[in-house]
Amino acid sequence: MPETPQQDGARRASIGARRNPAAEAAILAAARDLLAERGYAGFSIDEVARRAGAGKPTIYRWWPTKADLLIDVYSAEKAAIIAAPETGALWSDILDYTRALWAFWRGTPSGRTFRALIAEAQAGEAALRALRDKFLPERLKDLRLMFERAAARGDIDAAAVDALVELYIGFNWVRLLTDRIADDPPGIEAMARTLAGAPPGKAQ
Amino acid sequence: MPETPQQDGARRASIGARRNPAAEAAILAAARDLLAERGYAGFSIDEVARRAGAGKPTIYRWWPTKADLLIDVYSAEKAAIIAAPETGALWSDILDYTRALWAFWRGTPSGRTFRALIAEAQAGEAALRALRDKFLPERLKDLRLMFERAAARGDIDAAAVDALVELYIGFNWVRLLTDRIADDPPGIEAMARTLAGAPPGKAQ
Repeated sequence: MPETPQQDGARRASIGARRNPAAEAAILAAARDLLAERGYAGFSIDEVARRAGAGKPTIYRWWPTKADLLIDVYSAEKAAIIAAPETGALWSDILDYTRALWAFWRGTPSGRTFRALIAEAQAGEAALRALRDKFLPERLKDLRLMFERAAARGDIDAAAVDALVELYIGFNWVRLLTDRIADDPPGIEAMARTLAGAPPGKAQ
Repeated sequence: MPETPQQDGARRASIGARRNPAAEAAILAAARDLLAERGYAGFSIDEVARRAGAGKPTIYRWWPTKADLLIDVYSAEKAAIIAAPETGALWSDILDYTRALWAFWRGTPSGRTFRALIAEAQAGEAALRALRDKFLPERLKDLRLMFERAAARGDIDAAAVDALVELYIGFNWVRLLTDRIADDPPGIEAMARTLAGAPPGKAQ
């Protein structure tokens, strides 16, 4: 097992075990490919270990739960980072961001990975904590920017930002978890305008 | 195996196999209890069959997928039906409905059951179709009423109802799937007012 101890920063250290970069990359690549080929139903640490030529104890030492591994696969995939757009209006920011996010989910194993992560979190407390306390806060930073900028412009009440972010995340989760993330500009625009309070949205 | 063929309506017939009511009740009760005790991680058809004293072939004939069984457990639990409230304002309807829904999820095995169903739908197409095409449309009827009544009163644009329903569902899914459904009237009210466009919601 090629595990040369080395210093590689606070994030790694927080996981409680130092990693060999080549072995780590091989394991992440094997996990990504396995998800892409077989989805969550066919995803197992056994098979990841076999494909990566790594030992299961190594994988479990670096990623204590399957969820921790899935989070790192997702983050690595997000090299094509989706930045918060700045179109000047909240509704069109939301439209652009949503289309980019869904394209990312569709076009890479990331959609499957995220679905697997959410499913995993329903089966165990450790995975749930990883999703809620590690994955979500990290992923929401960019997204939240759109709403904070809109509040700064006076387009929405700053007090509504938390609720708007949560409503928006929810919309995306339901679409992903029911596999309805085909590109649909009119449908997405209707949601975006409703959420942003831009006409046509509500009478008052 | 106590399977006396009998007529019991279109819904049963649609599943493709007639059921013995006593055996069906025993299986649903066993499934509900197993979910309550062990959650999704400990849920298996093997264990349901053992507890109900039923054969696995019988269970699979009546509920082709685990998802179909979970849907019937959830529906049976919803005897304490949550009707759409009529407070006269959309935001307070949403507040009341959300508090009742979360209490239902917390106080019965239903929250766990629904989480298990969503997780199951990430692992297979049949379960996904059961969730999206059977469970969701059925469960959304009541909830949708709140928004349609608000549109009829002129409080919201009728064209926004679809998006509002989906945003609202999403909010609840995210909270359930990250296990944050403790009663929280101020937090829920903030979401409800934001969604309904009632102050404090947005500046414009």
